[in-house]
Amino acid sequence: MTQPRMQFWFEFASTYSYVAAMRIEKVAAEAGVPLEWKPFLLGPLFTEQQGIKDSPFNVFPIRGRYMWRDMERLCVKYGLPWRRPTAFPRLSVPAARVACLGASESWGPAFVRAVYQANFVDDRNIADPELLVPLLDALGLNGKALVERAGESDAKERLRRNTEEAARAGIFGAPNFIVDGELFFGQDRLDDAIAWYRQRVLGKTG
Amino acid sequence: MTQPRMQFWFEFASTYSYVAAMRIEKVAAEAGVPLEWKPFLLGPLFTEQQGIKDSPFNVFPIRGRYMWRDMERLCVKYGLPWRRPTAFPRLSVPAARVACLGASESWGPAFVRAVYQANFVDDRNIADPELLVPLLDALGLNGKALVERAGESDAKERLRRNTEEAARAGIFGAPNFIVDGELFFGQDRLDDAIAWYRQRVLGKTG
Repeated sequence: MTQPRMQFWFEFASTYSYVAAMRIEKVAAEAGVPLEWKPFLLGPLFTEQQGIKDSPFNVFPIRGRYMWRDMERLCVKYGLPWRRPTAFPRLSVPAARVACLGASESWGPAFVRAVYQANFVDDRNIADPELLVPLLDALGLNGKALVERAGESDAKERLRRNTEEAARAGIFGAPNFIVDGELFFGQDRLDDAIAWYRQRVLGKTG
Repeated sequence: MTQPRMQFWFEFASTYSYVAAMRIEKVAAEAGVPLEWKPFLLGPLFTEQQGIKDSPFNVFPIRGRYMWRDMERLCVKYGLPWRRPTAFPRLSVPAARVACLGASESWGPAFVRAVYQANFVDDRNIADPELLVPLLDALGLNGKALVERAGESDAKERLRRNTEEAARAGIFGAPNFIVDGELFFGQDRLDDAIAWYRQRVLGKTG
């Protein structure tokens, strides 16, 4: 039996997912917690659950104002670079399809971080598949070939399945961590999810 | 000049406010952070900001399911008693008006905890002003007289002012902590707010 992994559910358009994505690999490795990377799309969930067609941070400006200020503080706290993007949210479908192809590959986590950096540090339009090519090339991959594969039915189907699985798992925002069926929502719950894994899966306290 | 205080904004109907209310006095005292207790009403804010007339945890069942499970875990984590109330949310107006009268009194924090215990541990109807009388009596106060005062215009006005101040401060949920104009939303951000106070007000790191 393979060791269960902690699932990390992220959406490339999500600012709070950026914070989690940049931190999680180190935090999980130090705690001895193996990860499963789960890209998904929040848009369909927001529409189905709340009947909205835009980010709640745009639909409810008071929540948006808080989030943008909170991101500045969180990035200082965790020593992460940050620039408020000139467009929000950016369409994450092309990048998420590539991430599905890389989810079980050694280059997956580095690609995820590169996309977040492009969106939330370099303010580049991750909705453009052409932008993803040099990000992949920089990881020693054939970017052009991978972006083409991401446009084919297999990658599309993987992302669709992930998004449906997210809905069934009770997900309504991002990021999330799932350990042994337990859902933890929000970047500020990463430590709780890690502790849950260590207690419930590894049988360790503290 | 008096030392600035960290504001604790809470709503008696809010489950996550319960977690914060039971923990905050000890956490703040240990960190040397003086508190200002700010009862307010979320209902008018939800209606004005989101156009809803009920808790978002009822309006959006998927968020409610998560919250109820999350509360169980959080109460285990912090060693707090917990029983899911048979009615949610309970009208918090009468208790919040009494809390306004006690906000600057030595009995204030103990009354706040007693109301949360009644709602989320003993499953009692805090919407009933008569219920509040014995809670106050148990603190050595004249419960009947205080509940009567809470029905008068001064207490009503204080709660109305607090709720308007919450809206101006950018509040859209509960609980919140405000330090020197910086808003922190959610019980899981208490430590961040404390750290902010120590760094910005006391000039200490760590």
